Amino acid sequence: MLRWLTAGESHGPELLAILEGLPAGVAVTTAEIDEALRRRRLGYGRGARMKFEQDVVTISGGVRHGRTLGSPVAIRVGNTEWPKWETVMAADPVDPELLEGQARNAPRSRPRPGHADLAGMQKYGFDDARPVLDRASARETAARVALGQVARSFLKQALGVDIVSHVVAIGGASAPAGVLPGPGDMAAVDADPVRCVDPAASAAMVAEIDKAHKDGDTLGGVVEVLAYGLPPGLGSYTHWDRRLDSRLAGALMGIQAIKGVAVGDGFETARRPGSRAHDEIENTAGGVRRITNRAGGVEGGMTNGEPLRVSAAMKPISTVPRALATVDVLTGEAATAHHERSDVCAVPAAAIVAEAMVALVLADAAVEKFGGDSVEEVARNLAGYLSSLVIK
Amino acid sequence: MLRWLTAGESHGPELLAILEGLPAGVAVTTAEIDEALRRRRLGYGRGARMKFEQDVVTISGGVRHGRTLGSPVAIRVGNTEWPKWETVMAADPVDPELLEGQARNAPRSRPRPGHADLAGMQKYGFDDARPVLDRASARETAARVALGQVARSFLKQALGVDIVSHVVAIGGASAPAGVLPGPGDMAAVDADPVRCVDPAASAAMVAEIDKAHKDGDTLGGVVEVLAYGLPPGLGSYTHWDRRLDSRLAGALMGIQAIKGVAVGDGFETARRPGSRAHDEIENTAGGVRRITNRAGGVEGGMTNGEPLRVSAAMKPISTVPRALATVDVLTGEAATAHHERSDVCAVPAAAIVAEAMVALVLADAAVEKFGGDSVEEVARNLAGYLSSLVIK
Amino acid sequence: MLRWLTAGESHGPELLAILEGLPAGVAVTTAEIDEALRRRRLGYGRGARMKFEQDVVTISGGVRHGRTLGSPVAIRVGNTEWPKWETVMAADPVDPELLEGQARNAPRSRPRPGHADLAGMQKYGFDDARPVLDRASARETAARVALGQVARSFLKQALGVDIVSHVVAIGGASAPAGVLPGPGDMAAVDADPVRCVDPAASAAMVAEIDKAHKDGDTLGGVVEVLAYGLPPGLGSYTHWDRRLDSRLAGALMGIQAIKGVAVGDGFETARRPGSRAHDEIENTAGGVRRITNRAGGVEGGMTNGEPLRVSAAMKPISTVPRALATVDVLTGEAATAHHERSDVCAVPAAAIVAEAMVALVLADAAVEKFGGDSVEEVARNLAGYLSSLVIK
Amino acid sequence: MLRWLTAGESHGPELLAILEGLPAGVAVTTAEIDEALRRRRLGYGRGARMKFEQDVVTISGGVRHGRTLGSPVAIRVGNTEWPKWETVMAADPVDPELLEGQARNAPRSRPRPGHADLAGMQKYGFDDARPVLDRASARETAARVALGQVARSFLKQALGVDIVSHVVAIGGASAPAGVLPGPGDMAAVDADPVRCVDPAASAAMVAEIDKAHKDGDTLGGVVEVLAYGLPPGLGSYTHWDRRLDSRLAGALMGIQAIKGVAVGDGFETARRPGSRAHDEIENTAGGVRRITNRAGGVEGGMTNGEPLRVSAAMKPISTVPRALATVDVLTGEAATAHHERSDVCAVPAAAIVAEAMVALVLADAAVEKFGGDSVEEVARNLAGYLSSLVIK
Repeated sequence: MLRWLTAGESHGPELLAILEGLPAGVAVTTAEIDEALRRRRLGYGRGARMKFEQDVVTISGGVRHGRTLGSPVAIRVGNTEWPKWETVMAADPVDPELLEGQARNAPRSRPRPGHADLAGMQKYGFDDARPVLDRASARETAARVALGQVARSFLKQALGVDIVSHVVAIGGASAPAGVLPGPGDMAAVDADPVRCVDPAASAAMVAEIDKAHKDGDTLGGVVEVLAYGLPPGLGSYTHWDRRLDSRLAGALMGIQAIKGVAVGDGFETARRPGSRAHDEIENTAGGVRRITNRAGGVEGGMTNGEPLRVSAAMKPISTVPRALATVDVLTGEAATAHHERSDVCAVPAAAIVAEAMVALVLADAAVEKFGGDSVEEVARNLAGYLSSLVIK
Repeated sequence: MLRWLTAGESHGPELLAILEGLPAGVAVTTAEIDEALRRRRLGYGRGARMKFEQDVVTISGGVRHGRTLGSPVAIRVGNTEWPKWETVMAADPVDPELLEGQARNAPRSRPRPGHADLAGMQKYGFDDARPVLDRASARETAARVALGQVARSFLKQALGVDIVSHVVAIGGASAPAGVLPGPGDMAAVDADPVRCVDPAASAAMVAEIDKAHKDGDTLGGVVEVLAYGLPPGLGSYTHWDRRLDSRLAGALMGIQAIKGVAVGDGFETARRPGSRAHDEIENTAGGVRRITNRAGGVEGGMTNGEPLRVSAAMKPISTVPRALATVDVLTGEAATAHHERSDVCAVPAAAIVAEAMVALVLADAAVEKFGGDSVEEVARNLAGYLSSLVIK
Repeated sequence: MLRWLTAGESHGPELLAILEGLPAGVAVTTAEIDEALRRRRLGYGRGARMKFEQDVVTISGGVRHGRTLGSPVAIRVGNTEWPKWETVMAADPVDPELLEGQARNAPRSRPRPGHADLAGMQKYGFDDARPVLDRASARETAARVALGQVARSFLKQALGVDIVSHVVAIGGASAPAGVLPGPGDMAAVDADPVRCVDPAASAAMVAEIDKAHKDGDTLGGVVEVLAYGLPPGLGSYTHWDRRLDSRLAGALMGIQAIKGVAVGDGFETARRPGSRAHDEIENTAGGVRRITNRAGGVEGGMTNGEPLRVSAAMKPISTVPRALATVDVLTGEAATAHHERSDVCAVPAAAIVAEAMVALVLADAAVEKFGGDSVEEVARNLAGYLSSLVIK
Repeated sequence: MLRWLTAGESHGPELLAILEGLPAGVAVTTAEIDEALRRRRLGYGRGARMKFEQDVVTISGGVRHGRTLGSPVAIRVGNTEWPKWETVMAADPVDPELLEGQARNAPRSRPRPGHADLAGMQKYGFDDARPVLDRASARETAARVALGQVARSFLKQALGVDIVSHVVAIGGASAPAGVLPGPGDMAAVDADPVRCVDPAASAAMVAEIDKAHKDGDTLGGVVEVLAYGLPPGLGSYTHWDRRLDSRLAGALMGIQAIKGVAVGDGFETARRPGSRAHDEIENTAGGVRRITNRAGGVEGGMTNGEPLRVSAAMKPISTVPRALATVDVLTGEAATAHHERSDVCAVPAAAIVAEAMVALVLADAAVEKFGGDSVEEVARNLAGYLSSLVIK
């Protein structure tokens, strides 16, 4: 069982993350995590923050000389903007005079529709949305991406798994169905401004973003994550919460702004007749295979040996430049919502976060299936399993 | 924290379920659980089994004189077909002569596409799909519906919550958007042959089923669950796995045959601009309200006081009468898949199962937010919370 | 990860237990579970209930033809006394006339010191201790013993582990230190009236029980559980709640009436100097061994390859025939406590329950270390691990 | 539900800890955590490290202006010795030339009896004990003490609970039974060189330490933790792992070097007859009370309103200056164990760690019972509960 927690506020000194339960011997470096975080800042349509923001990564536990130790892995992602916030977001009490007049310290009493602001203030008893928005912010996903990179390295080194994502839709522009990146296409996808595999669709997505920007509006979209090289039998049908699809759905829907999740052809499958909805099985020289992969590599809540394919729908950025109507909680009067950031579209970045969540779920499922306290032990157990399969 | 486990095979003597952590004092009766199971057998397009199958409910722990005790609630759902299976599915070893020649005991070596069969055999090392299909079967959802009824009673009695579902699409036939059942419409929805609110759409769905039946084919569809009366602040933005949307998505995707999950307008929201994707806030005589409910009652991973609305896409029944191509795992030869059941469409029933999963997630979230070991204590804590809200 | 829940009241129709996560292929029979429950009824000093009580075992899920299926294992233990209680403990509402005048239905308003009665009534808001005592009763341990037997079979078949227990002390009578049963001594221990290895100590324990019985008093004692054949490395030092000693302590202290837990020499070790408290290491023809086993087979929260040895201290039966002083919660007046049962001493039975809890913890730790979905896979992974050890 | 993870190696740059699930509004400062860590360094018999070691505390998440936010609390405890270790324990790969000849980098191939060394190397596949000892080290408890301080503040502010510990025995010297510190005695206990309440026993303990030091030996002992002001009904009898005694036992046994755990009179209770083992109940002007507190404030796995009292037995420091016999894992030859540190006795510090673990368990049990997302909400729910008690 893998366990992990993240902590830290968007404008705090740093984000922290601890991943507990990972086997020893996984090759991991700061540079790889830096690179993963750089990928998270990618994408046409991001605001200024992505440009000046620097994620300063420190691995401070669980790794020595480039290998995990089996102990909890701890990563910190420092916030280079912290000096501007160090009194406003200080952990310890601060002399009120230091805070007086600081715009950053002004209470956020006009909750933004689409955000955690209002329900969060009600839940925790705040009359200021600052503590809510600062944790609910998507900046927290940097911590997940950092851990996801470690999980991905484990999956690659112990199981030979490759994870890749792409953008399937932004606003009204969609990529053609069935055009999928392969296991080695990460760099090519990353080179596209919106991380779309299809050039024409990419151009249409860029145009959508430009238009939304001009309109003072924002956009969402759909991302898809694929994992190649998975053995059959991760997850289980024996109890609902062991199902891999259940765990993937929870993980993807647990990303900020995600409102829909699909496995394989998802909602499209619901419209098809059964005779064209499943994946027939054939025996080939290379072993048993499905002729199609509508199921997205998951049957009965388990991997079936085909590529895993899951997608997630992201709503448009909730902070809309044309500010939305709200209420000032201090006065009860109608107001327009606070404005905290200025991305037009963060869908390409969401795909990177989705990769991380998929990697963490798969790593957990692999440890569950194969046990093992070192990369060597996991790989040995996997090899023994594969050689024992009833039919290969 | 609520915990629950189910057990039992489709052709075994019974299903069992234990729900641990529920407060004391919830009014529960066998008749109510019977009724919930009857609703699960509803729906045009079900096969013969639903007609002769009788779910024999026994509450054997955690309830006394119609009230929960705070101890684990145990429910058994007996299988009236068990006498036909008692040697084939016997727990203890059976004299081989008794099994010889029984068709029911013949190994299932031709795994059915779309089912857990093949991956399950590989995972657990079986050369017979019988143990896989018998647990992976949707019959297991009867146990969930039984527990879901208990969770629903708790939500109603302690929080005043009503849960209702309806069918949104079957195959190519869809209900018009935005036509939703209200909190008191359960009986009316149940009276429709496919549990659809819109009569014209219902007729189109029935026609789709008739056509599929004639074609030797099967159908899936989309169901939606609504919960009315939830306070704001269930779930949390503070950690991904505390988010209510994450937990709902995992629960719904954990139902057999579900391939997609959405909260509120889901994938549709991804296509809209931000200015028309969120729910503006206004103050009214009745308190703060959202003008629309595109978010489905969840912002920042928390309930926001609006009705909760989630949907799930079900693939067509995997056992297609026109049998699908597969491989015999004993010989490696091409074959056609075993045929185990004969529903054409189980979407109306899936909506009942989805209600149960939603009820279980919400009950857990309510216990997490309000604590409490009795209905009275939960209700008192809720009342105190509501009266303390920053803005109501 | 293994998960398990029990349900059922002491005077209800049955106890139920579900064990989720156990690999497939474990040989299990009803007769073996019967035998485990028979061992739990053993011991000089038990009251009448143990004689007439029959535990009627039904395996109703997760096992077919004597082998586990990988799906949740469900066991029911029927209560032969149920007909006497079926109105008093009925799940559904009962006509009040049927209850009137039944002594068994009279509210228990005089909470018994040492029992859950008073705190349980306060916690759950009852003015009758009946719902508390009926779940808090040690009868519930029959469900644990049933599951423990399944876990024990798994440990034996997949890892070659033997678990045995003995009674170390009853009241003031103690067995000599260091006299331990070996892996094959279960039958011999069971044959002793108090399950003590040393005949003289056994006689002294029996004499203590006779004296307590004559005095209208009750006794506790100390039990010890040993597990032979464990590989090194179950549990982990990397996080406190992965430590095997932590998990064993929680499991043993989670048995009714246990007030102390020790690993190896426990509290005695705290009195020794370091030079005589640890277990020096030597290399032998048979591999690396500890010269002593003061640590009880656990170092750094992991098995170290020596026999596991843990003990638990049981308080005397709380229902003392010479009734203890209490308060009637309905009147607030001083009273004497209700009297519900009449064992003088249940220490020998507690040892059997402790075996079950140890088996469940070890099975969980084995699944965590070795993964695996079948006995064959676990055994293969274990063999690979053992052959890879740095030093054997 | 509270969740928490720690990370970091003994000679790494820092320890980290994240506590997830704590309500908002708990007053917390860096200075209080500093003070908690200072208490952990207390005690006669500590080695040089405790003198020069400085715990540099940084709260980097979940707290703003001295109040928790409801988001995960993150604390780092920096290691002032890190510059000496920064190549030897670097996370990233290091030029081998930089490591060559550094004594700190020399493989530890002679595992120390009593430590995690040997089993840890076997489990994770290391031929060097360095990665094992660096995580298994008791330095990790600094992270727990930091979190424990936050939990303690919550318990004090929301429930009015005071936690205090004392040393009951060191080696052969014991404090007299029944002499307990009260809720306000923390400073007085801390002022004693061995944190013992009884001056004569304290002197005897100091003498034991002096003697052990002279003999090149080490000592263990027994610590006791008390919690005053707990309401009845934390924990539950309804399932074994909800029992507060089970959770406390797991938490205390999860501290490095602990080999025994007791609740109330523990093993002593097992020797008494029932008539003198339990706590009779009486009604007083101040409410219902137990006349004695042999049970240590826990009956049926729940707090009963009396002071909680738990104890833990610590084995002597495993690194004995008179080095113990072991085997060099690289050669298989007999050897003497590596020597890594030089405390003679760490029992007074263990009591501080035990306080922290008790605080974390109680905070979790309080959140479970009372729910609540802010100190105010928890306190309100508690007040409602107390006023509703059947009998007070």
